[in-house]
Amino acid sequence: MLERTTEMNLLYDFYGSLLTEKQQTLLELYYLEDWSLGEIAEHQGISRQAVFEAIKRAQATLHDLENKLGLLKKYHERRKIAQELSQQLERYPEAKKTVEPIIARWLEID
Amino acid sequence: MLERTTEMNLLYDFYGSLLTEKQQTLLELYYLEDWSLGEIAEHQGISRQAVFEAIKRAQATLHDLENKLGLLKKYHERRKIAQELSQQLERYPEAKKTVEPIIARWLEID
Repeated sequence: MLERTTEMNLLYDFYGSLLTEKQQTLLELYYLEDWSLGEIAEHQGISRQAVFEAIKRAQATLHDLENKLGLLKKYHERRKIAQELSQQLERYPEAKKTVEPIIARWLEID
Repeated sequence: MLERTTEMNLLYDFYGSLLTEKQQTLLELYYLEDWSLGEIAEHQGISRQAVFEAIKRAQATLHDLENKLGLLKKYHERRKIAQELSQQLERYPEAKKTVEPIIARWLEID
């Protein structure tokens, strides 16, 4: 089975630009458009097995990039710390109101 | 001339793990150890011109990765926002004292 999870979507968000154009097309159809392997095969004029193998290789590449750069791990760490920051600021409502938009911009950088 | 700047050092920090082992060795000697091209050539048993070309190609790869992933750009954006956050918190010394260690941990994630 191929993974079809939120994590794979996030990995694709982070590293998709490093894949080949062909790999990007396949993953977009599979993950973002939610097509079946059969539908992609018919549309691309290749076998279902070829689609399966290509997506599996692209997934392996995304996991390899995550092992090397850890952007998804860092993304989760930042979100956790932002939560902690918000909780700590509960005690200082005025300060919280002032810095909350800045924290929101910070999180958007991911 | 090859670039030998803080920016190249940062790019290597961010993307070095995606280069080949050979490229990593060359860039480490050139940027981190501050060896000359001639010294590297002698140590590696290749010509000075070959070292030059290899480092130039590795630099191009680092720039290409930055164009695609923008980690260095994001790094600078985060630092700018952290500064803004610190400035805004000047008015709330107690809140600042509480959240400063959390902000420090946030920045360390980069």
